[in-house]
Amino acid sequence: MLIEQQHGAVLTLTLNRPEVRNAFNAELIARLTQVIDRAEDNESVRVLVLRGAGEHFCAGADLHWMAGMAEEAMADNVADARALGTLMLKLDHCRKAVVSLIQGAVMGGGVGLVACSDVVLADPTAFFALSETRLGLTPATIAPFVVAAIGARQARRYMLTGERIDVDCALHLGLVHQVASPGELDSVLAALIEQLLRGGPTSHRKIKKLIRDVGQRPTDDDLMDNLSWRIANQRVSAEGQEGMQAFLTKRPPHWWPESNQ
Amino acid sequence: MLIEQQHGAVLTLTLNRPEVRNAFNAELIARLTQVIDRAEDNESVRVLVLRGAGEHFCAGADLHWMAGMAEEAMADNVADARALGTLMLKLDHCRKAVVSLIQGAVMGGGVGLVACSDVVLADPTAFFALSETRLGLTPATIAPFVVAAIGARQARRYMLTGERIDVDCALHLGLVHQVASPGELDSVLAALIEQLLRGGPTSHRKIKKLIRDVGQRPTDDDLMDNLSWRIANQRVSAEGQEGMQAFLTKRPPHWWPESNQ
Amino acid sequence: MLIEQQHGAVLTLTLNRPEVRNAFNAELIARLTQVIDRAEDNESVRVLVLRGAGEHFCAGADLHWMAGMAEEAMADNVADARALGTLMLKLDHCRKAVVSLIQGAVMGGGVGLVACSDVVLADPTAFFALSETRLGLTPATIAPFVVAAIGARQARRYMLTGERIDVDCALHLGLVHQVASPGELDSVLAALIEQLLRGGPTSHRKIKKLIRDVGQRPTDDDLMDNLSWRIANQRVSAEGQEGMQAFLTKRPPHWWPESNQ
Repeated sequence: MLIEQQHGAVLTLTLNRPEVRNAFNAELIARLTQVIDRAEDNESVRVLVLRGAGEHFCAGADLHWMAGMAEEAMADNVADARALGTLMLKLDHCRKAVVSLIQGAVMGGGVGLVACSDVVLADPTAFFALSETRLGLTPATIAPFVVAAIGARQARRYMLTGERIDVDCALHLGLVHQVASPGELDSVLAALIEQLLRGGPTSHRKIKKLIRDVGQRPTDDDLMDNLSWRIANQRVSAEGQEGMQAFLTKRPPHWWPESNQ
Repeated sequence: MLIEQQHGAVLTLTLNRPEVRNAFNAELIARLTQVIDRAEDNESVRVLVLRGAGEHFCAGADLHWMAGMAEEAMADNVADARALGTLMLKLDHCRKAVVSLIQGAVMGGGVGLVACSDVVLADPTAFFALSETRLGLTPATIAPFVVAAIGARQARRYMLTGERIDVDCALHLGLVHQVASPGELDSVLAALIEQLLRGGPTSHRKIKKLIRDVGQRPTDDDLMDNLSWRIANQRVSAEGQEGMQAFLTKRPPHWWPESNQ
Repeated sequence: MLIEQQHGAVLTLTLNRPEVRNAFNAELIARLTQVIDRAEDNESVRVLVLRGAGEHFCAGADLHWMAGMAEEAMADNVADARALGTLMLKLDHCRKAVVSLIQGAVMGGGVGLVACSDVVLADPTAFFALSETRLGLTPATIAPFVVAAIGARQARRYMLTGERIDVDCALHLGLVHQVASPGELDSVLAALIEQLLRGGPTSHRKIKKLIRDVGQRPTDDDLMDNLSWRIANQRVSAEGQEGMQAFLTKRPPHWWPESNQ
């Protein structure tokens, strides 16, 4: 259902239900949430990579599961939607750098995974759809992350039409950061990971929180006082001191990957 | 002044003052507001299409009207600005899908109409300008919608320079979603409308509200509780049940346009 | 350290420490802040142009200065970060139109200057990096402006990787508005300034405040009341009256640059 592989500081999670295009059911959501929770507290993990086994990344909700939910009571449907919402929230707030490597279909909740990632690499077969409206439904739990990723302007179009979004369009929208052919994708990923590992671990965590925070407050003197304190705090921290000393003495800081030292 | 045509679920509103490039005056604003209000409560209307008669979509404020306003008292100017603001607010909050089909000049309040639309199709002659500053004025009532559509970054440039924005630039900015030659525009519009009509009517209304709401709240547990409730509520609704049953039994839901069934 | 040149209504500020790629130290920050403060209250200045002497615009923090700060106490680091934050806040809130003309390296605080500008023109050698994380630091004081300029989606990638952003990518991100070859840059700047000078001075000030304000309030009836008042107030002002009268009588308003009259 979910393959976990850790190589060095990189934990790769592969959605492994290729027979249903890696669609979500309650078990996969629970499992993914649990693994992300564990990775959060595991200092040996610095980068989380999400992939999908087979030809597709993630087709959203599993149809058989959805058929069952259609007959359930309101409370069960709330709990079920909240489970996906919790997964999204945890992934978006994850203190590790999160990379998605995608191909084929990315739909519904799959778009949510992509929208919660820090960097998204796609092969040319990748395509997206927010087709909930064609079932008379709404993409509510993923909406905050999709709107944050592509903006309200584009979200209005694609959530109302449910139309297919190809990879070039997704690049234009900012849903995908980079497209590479299947043959190049592994080396593009390796180069990206190397760059991510050069960043300080505490710095990464603070930068992710910083970006969330600044979008939700007026840019005024109060915010600037707060941000100045954050800069100073990081400068006098062990990591900041190590980073600046390393830089000034022209040596790599202790957290850099060995191959680069 | 304003031509109304309903074909099936599509209500087309054509600004019809081509002798002044479909510029706004108090009557046109009042009329458009009234028609949108009526369409809101008309269940037979699912898509609103805005067009301009002649070679231009809408040149903003009518000069003769503006000349009159220049001599009016503060209170009359407030009331007058508020009337355009009310139109913008109602169009932006409209529960129906709104499509603008544009050509030629789109200026001032015309940019507002475009910014409040869900999808904007343009022919290659379309161009935009936010030239209020050249008259010593500010584009205040349209500003929230323009900033939502193209972002503060680009709004700062174009509201300060008042320069002309061509259609390729407008596509890059997200002000236009798609450009098509005049010969292709009708078929592009027809295909778009068909896709819009496949979405559930209640779902469309809830998606538009959803996108507005998520941009104005922190993405936290409280929001996620609220969104989970929205998902569940739509799933157990008549529309959600019909949509899922139709999908699972491989038949079109009752709201799909007949040509596709 | 900082060259000030005023020609007509344009005040050009050139960072002049080419031997350190115009990096910031405490003196340059203080000087720039002071000059911006003075320009704010100088009615003869309508456009502020920021440039860098030599091959680079601004490489961020000066390494020697940073080396000193690394050994300072928390309070001194807070004060120091706040000084850069104050500069950013004043530049972003500056009532004059601000143009940056960039080439070569734009890093750290240099990216902040660019993000606080209204229009950014670049030559093809320009490149950017938000590489603080590689030193174990965070780009906190510039973050609100960078996130406002390129969006949280792209900020997450580039603040976590610290990777180099070339000028085409910067154009895609909206960090740069226009790229021109070194031979064309001066005429592109001259044309831009001419367009900026056609805007009303008070109108410019109000538009900049307007764009900041609308992003931080819900788009509802209260906002629309406020915006309608702003429109009316500007219409009945001396500048609005002059602008409309000039337009209606087909003469330039008094603030237009003479070459165009």
